[in-house]
Amino acid sequence: MYRNVKHVPYYIFGKGSLAQLGELVTERRKAVGAGVFFFLDHFFRDRDLAARLPVEQGDRVIYVDVTEEPTTDYMDVLTAQVREAAPSLPCCMVALGGGATMDACKAVANLMTNPGLAEDYQGWELVKNPPVYKIAVPTLAGTGSECSRTCVLSNVQKRLKLGMNSDYTVFDQVIMDPELTRSVPRDQFFYTGMDTYMHCFETLTGTYRNRIVDALAEKAVSMCEDIFLSDDMMSEVNLEKMMIASYLGGMATGYVGVVHPFSAGLSVALHMRHGIANCYALTVLDDIYPAQHAAFMHMLERQQVSLPKGVCRSLREEDYDVLYSGTIVHENSLSNRLGPDFKKILSKANVIERFKRM
Amino acid sequence: MYRNVKHVPYYIFGKGSLAQLGELVTERRKAVGAGVFFFLDHFFRDRDLAARLPVEQGDRVIYVDVTEEPTTDYMDVLTAQVREAAPSLPCCMVALGGGATMDACKAVANLMTNPGLAEDYQGWELVKNPPVYKIAVPTLAGTGSECSRTCVLSNVQKRLKLGMNSDYTVFDQVIMDPELTRSVPRDQFFYTGMDTYMHCFETLTGTYRNRIVDALAEKAVSMCEDIFLSDDMMSEVNLEKMMIASYLGGMATGYVGVVHPFSAGLSVALHMRHGIANCYALTVLDDIYPAQHAAFMHMLERQQVSLPKGVCRSLREEDYDVLYSGTIVHENSLSNRLGPDFKKILSKANVIERFKRM
Repeated sequence: MYRNVKHVPYYIFGKGSLAQLGELVTERRKAVGAGVFFFLDHFFRDRDLAARLPVEQGDRVIYVDVTEEPTTDYMDVLTAQVREAAPSLPCCMVALGGGATMDACKAVANLMTNPGLAEDYQGWELVKNPPVYKIAVPTLAGTGSECSRTCVLSNVQKRLKLGMNSDYTVFDQVIMDPELTRSVPRDQFFYTGMDTYMHCFETLTGTYRNRIVDALAEKAVSMCEDIFLSDDMMSEVNLEKMMIASYLGGMATGYVGVVHPFSAGLSVALHMRHGIANCYALTVLDDIYPAQHAAFMHMLERQQVSLPKGVCRSLREEDYDVLYSGTIVHENSLSNRLGPDFKKILSKANVIERFKRM
Repeated sequence: MYRNVKHVPYYIFGKGSLAQLGELVTERRKAVGAGVFFFLDHFFRDRDLAARLPVEQGDRVIYVDVTEEPTTDYMDVLTAQVREAAPSLPCCMVALGGGATMDACKAVANLMTNPGLAEDYQGWELVKNPPVYKIAVPTLAGTGSECSRTCVLSNVQKRLKLGMNSDYTVFDQVIMDPELTRSVPRDQFFYTGMDTYMHCFETLTGTYRNRIVDALAEKAVSMCEDIFLSDDMMSEVNLEKMMIASYLGGMATGYVGVVHPFSAGLSVALHMRHGIANCYALTVLDDIYPAQHAAFMHMLERQQVSLPKGVCRSLREEDYDVLYSGTIVHENSLSNRLGPDFKKILSKANVIERFKRM
């Protein structure tokens, strides 16, 4: 049995394509007769993006706090906020932001039409009712959230980081306007873009393979190399390329490898954001991914991105325990690269030593 | 204004995935309560494919004559045939075949819910009503029909080769089972596979560009090179790769260049099939596509595919006129590669001389 893979059914790509959002939401307004909810990364609170949006009476703009990665509790809060503001279901929800904002939009769109709490839907195929129609407008490229079938949520109580894996979680429409990524701080652009590079090379160096995923991942990796080994990763051409690489990489959702488990450890223990956590992880995996480690260090230097050393120095003993357990729990990913005996390499001492080297 | 690009919303990829067709049509039967129409390439008439299909009472198997490329008249005949056999609209139409069979299925699915004749819908955005749900199961890879928004139809009276360009023409589901291409004759496999290579490199060497189309086309071209420069283009791995290259290439629908106009000339004048016509076209475009011409000649030799010379020798004067006019009419494609003054190179004498060289 092969998976029946869902694609985002419609995309618009091009510089300035944000201008076409108005037409798309107008269609939804006509079809459904209700308001539009815009989910904006709180980074845009004091910027002019909201003023450029086709907001009409009855619509709402909600700023999503993405200081930390989305939690299940926060999704419940946002859902209550939308329910309170909307007399009926919105005709459409629009996410403008990076992975966290898009994931929040996906989760809340599911929760608007499915009873219970966000944590009830962490897992696979648990969403039963069709969600609110939703549009992604990424303003940061690299997570692949714009075309993936999950939304990563941290369940703080359960210490569980798991998304709502469902075809219903896939956006109905994506608008890729590379201009929106121009104002991203350089370090952030790098960390997030690297997410595509990492999950694609992890897939390509794993045991579990799928040739169509391979084809997309290979292209995404080679585009990332072009971008991050060039003189300026944020040139106009590279802004476009990075948005495409993220999209193709998002279509290439396969198993990951060793980077993501270490990254998850950092997120769980230190609440570090996913993109930068991936970067720290790869810096200490030179023995496991020698070629990619070397390429990455070269990219980091070439783009003059800072990744200050010592993030895991002088932690308490129990912090290292959390780092270790938050890493080693990802058995499928670790064995995808290292085989079932991955603990022979990744002993507790070995894992902690790596964190201390970061 | 950028196009809002429609993707095929669902795909299944993998060896033996044809077995999953039953489940998909069962869902349709439940949802709609009517029969399924299977459109099979007539090549399968005396083969065992029909016996492997989930045909139930009330379903029909229709063999599509693909001796020549689909004509508008033939689409009207097929539509009448389906209407006569079905008391109500089918719940689903399934195409099993190459580009011609898939295109026929697309055209008839549109005509089942839209009044008039096939020729009424040759053009852009002319289909008004949602068509019958349709599933593509390519048994030949390279045309990209499985994921494109057109179905190429020849209008014999009007001497017009033009598809029903519409989002409605896009399949609702694709099943890519590389095993189905194993029985394709070697020459045929080559000619059809080359369609992907040609339309992708034509796009990449043109003036009108789109970076997302470029990314997909680049990957499809490099996969074709891997396949056709390998020892055996029909190894198991290459059957898989070719199906993926066709799919990615179909997503990369951009403008074509000089190959397709010459190929269209051959189809109009000599009723030559599209794939082999493309091959003949490229053999005489060594000055316009030097690198691709050289690569192609190398592939032809390496795969020991025959392309007997002399197909346009000793024609009548009026045949050459048709060849010329059937080529030169494609102004957008020709100028995409050669600029608006393309006739400076492609004078009538020059074009005819090329045909004579084939």
